[in-house]
Amino acid sequence: MVGADAAGMSAAHTALRAAAGADREVGITVLEATGHTSYSACGIPYWIAGDVPGGEDLVARSAREHRAAGIDLRLGTRAVALDPERRRVRVEGDGGPDELEYDELVLATGAAPIVPDWARTAAGGLVEGVHPVKNLDDGAVWTGLLAEAGEMGGPTRAVVVGGGYIGLEMAEALIRRGLTTTLVTRSRVMSSLDADLGAEIEAALVAGGVDLRTGRTVERLETTDGRVGGVVTDTGERLTTDVVVLAIGVEPATSLGAAAGLPLGVEGGYLPDPGGRVAPGIWAAGDCCEVTHRLTGGRAFLPLGTHANKLGRVVGDNLLGGDRRFGGALGTAITRFVAGGVHLEIARTGLSSAAATAAGYDVAALVTIGTTASGYMPEAEQIQTKVIADRTTRRLLGVQIVGGPGSAKRIDAAAAALWGGLDVDDLAGMDLAYAPPFATVWDALQIAARRLADRL
Amino acid sequence: MVGADAAGMSAAHTALRAAAGADREVGITVLEATGHTSYSACGIPYWIAGDVPGGEDLVARSAREHRAAGIDLRLGTRAVALDPERRRVRVEGDGGPDELEYDELVLATGAAPIVPDWARTAAGGLVEGVHPVKNLDDGAVWTGLLAEAGEMGGPTRAVVVGGGYIGLEMAEALIRRGLTTTLVTRSRVMSSLDADLGAEIEAALVAGGVDLRTGRTVERLETTDGRVGGVVTDTGERLTTDVVVLAIGVEPATSLGAAAGLPLGVEGGYLPDPGGRVAPGIWAAGDCCEVTHRLTGGRAFLPLGTHANKLGRVVGDNLLGGDRRFGGALGTAITRFVAGGVHLEIARTGLSSAAATAAGYDVAALVTIGTTASGYMPEAEQIQTKVIADRTTRRLLGVQIVGGPGSAKRIDAAAAALWGGLDVDDLAGMDLAYAPPFATVWDALQIAARRLADRL
Repeated sequence: MVGADAAGMSAAHTALRAAAGADREVGITVLEATGHTSYSACGIPYWIAGDVPGGEDLVARSAREHRAAGIDLRLGTRAVALDPERRRVRVEGDGGPDELEYDELVLATGAAPIVPDWARTAAGGLVEGVHPVKNLDDGAVWTGLLAEAGEMGGPTRAVVVGGGYIGLEMAEALIRRGLTTTLVTRSRVMSSLDADLGAEIEAALVAGGVDLRTGRTVERLETTDGRVGGVVTDTGERLTTDVVVLAIGVEPATSLGAAAGLPLGVEGGYLPDPGGRVAPGIWAAGDCCEVTHRLTGGRAFLPLGTHANKLGRVVGDNLLGGDRRFGGALGTAITRFVAGGVHLEIARTGLSSAAATAAGYDVAALVTIGTTASGYMPEAEQIQTKVIADRTTRRLLGVQIVGGPGSAKRIDAAAAALWGGLDVDDLAGMDLAYAPPFATVWDALQIAARRLADRL
Repeated sequence: MVGADAAGMSAAHTALRAAAGADREVGITVLEATGHTSYSACGIPYWIAGDVPGGEDLVARSAREHRAAGIDLRLGTRAVALDPERRRVRVEGDGGPDELEYDELVLATGAAPIVPDWARTAAGGLVEGVHPVKNLDDGAVWTGLLAEAGEMGGPTRAVVVGGGYIGLEMAEALIRRGLTTTLVTRSRVMSSLDADLGAEIEAALVAGGVDLRTGRTVERLETTDGRVGGVVTDTGERLTTDVVVLAIGVEPATSLGAAAGLPLGVEGGYLPDPGGRVAPGIWAAGDCCEVTHRLTGGRAFLPLGTHANKLGRVVGDNLLGGDRRFGGALGTAITRFVAGGVHLEIARTGLSSAAATAAGYDVAALVTIGTTASGYMPEAEQIQTKVIADRTTRRLLGVQIVGGPGSAKRIDAAAAALWGGLDVDDLAGMDLAYAPPFATVWDALQIAARRLADRL
């Protein structure tokens, strides 16, 4: 395995279990360029916010545990070349230089944060005070940069560049750490949701204390003694800041396979088949892949631990002759913004209106406002639900949710309905759970589905 | 319509809307024996607990609003006889005596609380201090009985008879009102869940301050001056008490139709077809019905507002020639027990292990303990998930959840999967929402499904 995070280690342990079950021997070597294994990248903003005591708490399984399970784990070791014909990998670093033979190779190299030119020094490094939020080393940099937040002389201002999941989660973390926070985003916030719900999210961010700049790009930084002091946007506005979060996105880390001639998708990711194969003897899983979208049948770059774990498990079984298949992704995602007295939850699944139209559907969509509990209960919070369906077939295509505490995990019922290929009438009619502290008698999701169904 | 709560009024308003849409005239008369319309019976325990200020807050639509919509609503009026041949109903009370002709009749008479003989006076009334929790009048009795709770001379001890949803919710309400509360139940608590999860619930009730007596029945009451002072169980134990909650269950209120020769099910409920018909020109909806179970195809008595509203809507459309169908029930249900420092959520959907075995399935089931959020997050709470599937076909049959805050509404994803006829591998593989505050990377539901799938 190349890469020791979710996908690679899921594959490794699944293969070990499969081998043990079949009373076979299997020798597994894992190459990992960093010093970390099996950590939750999604947890890093909460570490920075102070919810999680330390980076070690984000580690699901330590190097020692992996080795105790019988895995030859080589940290600080980078795979630098791949020869698919001879089935060999050349490695450098602490576990090299060496050339390793393999019977089966799993590419689980993940994704790398996009770092724009303006964030770099002339020497190619990052300007001091400017950093992405991707791995545990990044998390440690951030806890260092913010160590004196709230103290005399500590950082007081932050700029977050990027309005996606990480951008929002970092805006929450920074406001909760007491920094005056500006968020700059090229288009709008959470552009994976439709614009109407995006506007609700933007209003909540502003209410929670985010100084928002949508439709803006960063032109350049201002620095003093090599350290960031300001951000200049394309309108010429200068934002004074002590730190800059790079949350522009990530891209698949596929240079190893690309150099070896493996096919890549339009987003630059590997293209595993449902069983995880990319070439004879070569498999891929995790954020370095474009996964199959269950609704369109096409590829999508959806870097998320859920797919990494699931595809890693598929690969781990199939490596030893199994016949497991990845069922596809729906694009389900969830996050929250909880700061400055605001508690907003956000979730989506399936196709957005734009994506559904692009996929050729005759799109009908409607936003319905409901409550998370019976209106007379103290738990009741507003929930806005957008349901997207095909006008002709009535098939459910997507659901998006923006609301208060208890809103967002409702997306799972919609995801399950999409997984089953159900229609909007099924969602409206199905037997969801009701009691006053938990829902209205027609759950908010069902009111939304019913209203759309009535208009089709 | 006979009955002006969820089913009857859903049917009435849906018919009015359908008529308006078709530019037709329809005259709707609704007979209601009590003085109340369209109220949330499920909210009554929360009114008694003090979460809801008054009974009027539980009324979704008042008599005035119904009348303003054009409905001839007759409160305090009871339908006492039905002649299906002549299409007439004889009524008594404030809106009678009278004989009404109808073209279409909707029976929406609900369910009545079971009142055992030991709860009655020689004259047939209820012993003072002993009361069920069914309608708004009952709620008003309870707020009266508990008005002085916490004050000198006020009630200090309660006995709840019955360990189902209402029993648990009333135990919560009474403990939160400061009463020392004993719960007596014939078998075990929440017997609609499997016994292993039932044991978890019982432990939580005890931890939350409930004095629990399972496997016990009430033999008789002790009274002083006609007022309850104690409960004597079948073991001879005497429980001193000021009030007794009758939460033994409800039964379909079908005497009107039974006397007219309409067929009833084994539980005594009307048996509407998927369109809501029970006889020529006669329809039924709500708690007076046994609904079709989507998984077994058989009938089930599941008195719950969700089915009442859905079936009421089906009937309202079909009355005027529509062709809507009720999709069936899954037996989804949810509740909580939040008192004495305990916050326990409980949910179920589909068939229990026993019901699945009785229905002829080759049952495999497993309880898995997980967390509601990533383990390193402060939000993480324990969640126990039981997944029930057919060993041969791998089809998902049921899911049960017991856990901390944020646990129980996860049942909806399982309900959606059951609705779609999905298998346990679908539940394990589907794209559910993950972010650290909301779930583990494999959601607790999916870990449970995956573990069971691995054992099949």
